[in-house]
Amino acid sequence: MSTQSHAQANPGLEGIVAAETALSLVDGERGELVVAGHKLETLVQRDFEDVVTLLWDAAGGVDGKRVVATALPPATLALLEDAARQRVDAMDALRMATATLTASSDAAAARLLVGAFPTIVASYARLLRGEQPVAPRGDLGLAANYLYMHTGVKPHDELVRGLNVYLTTVADHGLNASTFTARVITSTGSDFVSAVTGAVGALKGPLHGGAPGPALDMVFEIGAASRAEAVLRDKLARGERLMGFGHRVYKVRDPRADVLAAAAARMFTRGGDLGLYELARSVEATALKLLEQHKPGRRLKTNVEFYTALLLHGLGIETAFFTPTFAVGRVAGWTAHCFEQRAVARLIRPQSAYVGRMPH
Amino acid sequence: MSTQSHAQANPGLEGIVAAETALSLVDGERGELVVAGHKLETLVQRDFEDVVTLLWDAAGGVDGKRVVATALPPATLALLEDAARQRVDAMDALRMATATLTASSDAAAARLLVGAFPTIVASYARLLRGEQPVAPRGDLGLAANYLYMHTGVKPHDELVRGLNVYLTTVADHGLNASTFTARVITSTGSDFVSAVTGAVGALKGPLHGGAPGPALDMVFEIGAASRAEAVLRDKLARGERLMGFGHRVYKVRDPRADVLAAAAARMFTRGGDLGLYELARSVEATALKLLEQHKPGRRLKTNVEFYTALLLHGLGIETAFFTPTFAVGRVAGWTAHCFEQRAVARLIRPQSAYVGRMPH
Repeated sequence: MSTQSHAQANPGLEGIVAAETALSLVDGERGELVVAGHKLETLVQRDFEDVVTLLWDAAGGVDGKRVVATALPPATLALLEDAARQRVDAMDALRMATATLTASSDAAAARLLVGAFPTIVASYARLLRGEQPVAPRGDLGLAANYLYMHTGVKPHDELVRGLNVYLTTVADHGLNASTFTARVITSTGSDFVSAVTGAVGALKGPLHGGAPGPALDMVFEIGAASRAEAVLRDKLARGERLMGFGHRVYKVRDPRADVLAAAAARMFTRGGDLGLYELARSVEATALKLLEQHKPGRRLKTNVEFYTALLLHGLGIETAFFTPTFAVGRVAGWTAHCFEQRAVARLIRPQSAYVGRMPH
Repeated sequence: MSTQSHAQANPGLEGIVAAETALSLVDGERGELVVAGHKLETLVQRDFEDVVTLLWDAAGGVDGKRVVATALPPATLALLEDAARQRVDAMDALRMATATLTASSDAAAARLLVGAFPTIVASYARLLRGEQPVAPRGDLGLAANYLYMHTGVKPHDELVRGLNVYLTTVADHGLNASTFTARVITSTGSDFVSAVTGAVGALKGPLHGGAPGPALDMVFEIGAASRAEAVLRDKLARGERLMGFGHRVYKVRDPRADVLAAAAARMFTRGGDLGLYELARSVEATALKLLEQHKPGRRLKTNVEFYTALLLHGLGIETAFFTPTFAVGRVAGWTAHCFEQRAVARLIRPQSAYVGRMPH
């Protein structure tokens, strides 16, 4: 059990299976995502609350009581007000607010976390704009409340549907770095608030994935379908990465891109900026064509960020709040993995290889 | 790269080397701990600040500027005041306060974290007792300031020396679960405050190790050397674990126990409760004798918790603040591992094996 300097290090833990899970199956070769026994394509017809329940059930977590949006404790709100005065980054603010929560049981913590995330993120968006936070309404679900707490106005059903598709799509996705963080912390016997606070910190990192802002920036930069080919050729010639294309795991089209594209199409058709949607489709088609020419065999396909950006923009969410909105969905998976890890009841504790100086 | 259900899971990551490190070597068979190229036995002659510098240097972190105790931002203090009113657990309070910190660079974050931890923990101890926090003094080092901020009185040199030995002893210890958490979060490209907040959450868990409270409780329960054998025999007969003995890695005497025992002996001799120290030595000797009889071959030796408890008690620190005081020392290692992981610049992202239901 000693930590020897001659051991073989695997610094990315690539290919190591660190957990068994009943929560999601990511099949990168076939482009399939199964969440709690359901294909993503059927799952997105449900409300986010249903998916939370399905995940918690699959993890052996809690009874089927529906989770509701939660008002924030005064101390949490005061902290967010102070953060907004200092223009703290939205993910830092989410970490700060998450860390303040306390609950008397795992089940209570899971409910509190999933119920409080929409309130934290929307409240902070308002505070940064100099507006007072709006408390959640008892008659609205999580997605509707999230949009309501951003604007203060009850959102149209079409927008609520679009957000439900998004939150459901990102609810869980295997053992990504933030989910793994939540499991490592839970594995010590610590509480779910501590685990999810750690997960928020991991999600913040640019290597985590799920940074949809730049993909949208690229679409705006192109501005018109007629300019797509010239701008993208230029980027590729300069060796730039096309944001929104390629994924570490998916070697075919990311299944999440499809359902988000469909949701965006429906949402924009029924009362949004259809021009932007059509521009994005055109940019996508051009990008895929050029990527196949420039990087043949690399199989770079549209990833989840591309249509996430379009969808969230259509919902009126600012770019700085794209990753926090991702967290509003992913906290479902984080808490479910906490329940699952709790049942394992085993410390996750790899070793290190010492490569430093030895004493004289 | 797909996540397959037939892969072999290693749910504790046992035997997996997840990082190369120049920070510490834990040799469990030989009972040796090397920190930043120095044997623990020589390292504990230094002040904690020196060890922080040595660790950061070994990690390629920052210039050698000495770290100093830092006053807390008003919002952080306000949050701790609210937590104290609700009698929040000290580790939860440390997580809350840590999460509120922000810094403009990795080096600034590392300094802020190591400098603020003594202030956070000591302030919260005072608040829980209904006393106003005391700001750190510019003329005192970290250990002296920590004791000063607990009591409001400049501590005797002998106590400062004892705390320096303790903080130095626990500064780093391989890839334990909290350190691993900090590295996973940093591996996404996230910031050090997020990483250390996650580490605090992991340290909180009872399976992490480093829970010295119960070891001290056992000594108090025994109360007199003459009762040690009877009480301990009784515990073993009932199948109870003797707190303060046995370690997952060390199969010989934990080298940390030796240096802490020596520090406790010196501290108690020069003005503490020498009777308690002698009781503890007697309990230890009896426990080791009985463990060898009851569990031959298990090699259960005195671990770091046993003398930690005695030393921290001698320093006037309440049991509820033993683990937060451990964090005041371990944050040196956490930040050093953050620097080291930053240089690796590689996402730590293991896989999961799906064992759930498949769609129809």
